[in-house]
Amino acid sequence: MSAAFTLSLDAMGGDFAPEIVLKGAALARERYPSAHFLLFGDEAKLKPLLAQYVALAACSTIRHTDQVITGDTKPSQAIRQGRQSSMWKAIEAVKLGEAAGVVSAGNTGALMAMAKIIMRPLPGIDRPAICGLFPTRMGETTMLDLGANAQCDARNLVEFAVMGECFARAILGLERPSVGLLNIGSEDVKGTDALREASQVLRSSHLDMEFKGFIEGDDIAAGTVDVVVTDGFTGNVALKTAEGTAKLFASFLKAAIHSSWLAKFGMLFAKPVISQVMARTDARRYNGALFVGLNGVVVKSHGGTDGVGFANAIGVAVDMIARDLNTKIGEELARIAADRLEEALPVEAIGAVPQ
Amino acid sequence: MSAAFTLSLDAMGGDFAPEIVLKGAALARERYPSAHFLLFGDEAKLKPLLAQYVALAACSTIRHTDQVITGDTKPSQAIRQGRQSSMWKAIEAVKLGEAAGVVSAGNTGALMAMAKIIMRPLPGIDRPAICGLFPTRMGETTMLDLGANAQCDARNLVEFAVMGECFARAILGLERPSVGLLNIGSEDVKGTDALREASQVLRSSHLDMEFKGFIEGDDIAAGTVDVVVTDGFTGNVALKTAEGTAKLFASFLKAAIHSSWLAKFGMLFAKPVISQVMARTDARRYNGALFVGLNGVVVKSHGGTDGVGFANAIGVAVDMIARDLNTKIGEELARIAADRLEEALPVEAIGAVPQ
Repeated sequence: MSAAFTLSLDAMGGDFAPEIVLKGAALARERYPSAHFLLFGDEAKLKPLLAQYVALAACSTIRHTDQVITGDTKPSQAIRQGRQSSMWKAIEAVKLGEAAGVVSAGNTGALMAMAKIIMRPLPGIDRPAICGLFPTRMGETTMLDLGANAQCDARNLVEFAVMGECFARAILGLERPSVGLLNIGSEDVKGTDALREASQVLRSSHLDMEFKGFIEGDDIAAGTVDVVVTDGFTGNVALKTAEGTAKLFASFLKAAIHSSWLAKFGMLFAKPVISQVMARTDARRYNGALFVGLNGVVVKSHGGTDGVGFANAIGVAVDMIARDLNTKIGEELARIAADRLEEALPVEAIGAVPQ
Repeated sequence: MSAAFTLSLDAMGGDFAPEIVLKGAALARERYPSAHFLLFGDEAKLKPLLAQYVALAACSTIRHTDQVITGDTKPSQAIRQGRQSSMWKAIEAVKLGEAAGVVSAGNTGALMAMAKIIMRPLPGIDRPAICGLFPTRMGETTMLDLGANAQCDARNLVEFAVMGECFARAILGLERPSVGLLNIGSEDVKGTDALREASQVLRSSHLDMEFKGFIEGDDIAAGTVDVVVTDGFTGNVALKTAEGTAKLFASFLKAAIHSSWLAKFGMLFAKPVISQVMARTDARRYNGALFVGLNGVVVKSHGGTDGVGFANAIGVAVDMIARDLNTKIGEELARIAADRLEEALPVEAIGAVPQ
């Protein structure tokens, strides 16, 4: 992106904030020299940190805030009492047109609750969701919800499917992305009532979606579908389980290589390609999940990430802004909502259609 | 185990049955020469297959059954109409004292429903669960439920914790296994009502459990706790996601090595240790999950496993029988139930106590 643009950063959100936020912004500035940053947080803490990054300081403005939303703050409490927080103010900057998007590594529930109040969901969307990319055997797969909505009904799942499909079309460049519902068996009798109802709606000809039915946990990495749809509880557990397993595999590999001098010798030759694999499955590379279904760009970084990871989350926001993705998703949703969604979602079958 | 013992096998259960069942039994016979097998299934199919394994044939008896429980049979339908099936008859053999345990790679829901009717749950247990072992950075972790109960209330989760703790004490030889509840955040406000209620009960001094509170998906592979407790939906997705990710990592590694002749050369030296890692994370090695909470040994094999995997599932059953684990779990449960569980589970707080 060559045109100048401004990003709003919640400098106090995350386990290792504000350090990793500033480090991440400094790395991102190298990649996007035309970026400006609004840093929301405690000026007394931010000022000396920012002084360490001369180039970043030149394109950043600190906006002092007193309040910090902690990890154990309930979303309801955050939106009642947190309006002076770095998180609230950072989101508000987008609403006010001062920034094109916001990135936070803070409390996910609070971030989503605030974003919904400040930015409002897109027309026709009841519950915005967290959407991310996974590495797979076939390339990359879109998955949502990764943790915004712990409990979901059929209508929520259908909305996720529609948003995920738009996202995959726009960001992965697929003409007709395939969609699957994450379940514990591919047979129609498996799973919860919400899953079975959502499956019925998604199969309906009104939606005209490349719906592949139920998929299972191992289908995520296999890349069986382009879009994996699930509730936020299951999605979050699956995401973190996959990350944990990849780390475990990497640590087994390192330990095994260090246990044998012959292997260490062999690794002198194999190291470049092994490093490629490590990089390809590095969770930091996939850090930065988009909140889809909102009137604005909000990117959530993993709370425990480092500067490299936070820079990647900033990269996701830049991508979204550059490609004007949210507008495209909004248009697509509006089209689908008008043409097909309401027909495919009989009110009496899966609950009231939100206003 | 040197004393002779008999295992009952559902020869028709699983995606590649009966072939993989007989292949698995033949491999298991080499490991356990004193084993006898009762093979339940279609005699016309089993006879010519068994003839290929001379040693296995010498210690096996075919019991003809006409009916097969397919993957899409509902549990309710299976128990009403499936009483002449290979699955039902194989379980029944344990109840009748003809076999010490049963192994099936068939329909999980049907197997659990039948086992509950034929064997009955242990006293004090409302919902038996599927319990398995995961490789972790620290060694191995017990996880349950892996798919028997898609929706669980707080009482179910507490029972799983108690059973999992007994299992870890007995099979991993731990004096005081630590227990965690799988959630989407470690803060007390996260997750569903059932999780929060279960957490409160598990913290109670009555249970005297090494309860570590909420853990997240990446804690499974990190080995943060010895026992991971979750509902069957989440557990099943996590298990399969971890398997899928391990396979993905392995395939990335293979592809990377084959892409470079230098790496291929290096691999001549590193191959033995790489193979160790592959073996350590091979899903087949962890195949065979125990149904805990039943009056009898029932082991569920992955439906899509091969002969090597099925042989490992047989090994789990042999272990359970040799160590008389189910009796130990039963005794421990009875003791806890009498001493502490009823005190820790106020009826009005988390629903009716089952009879």
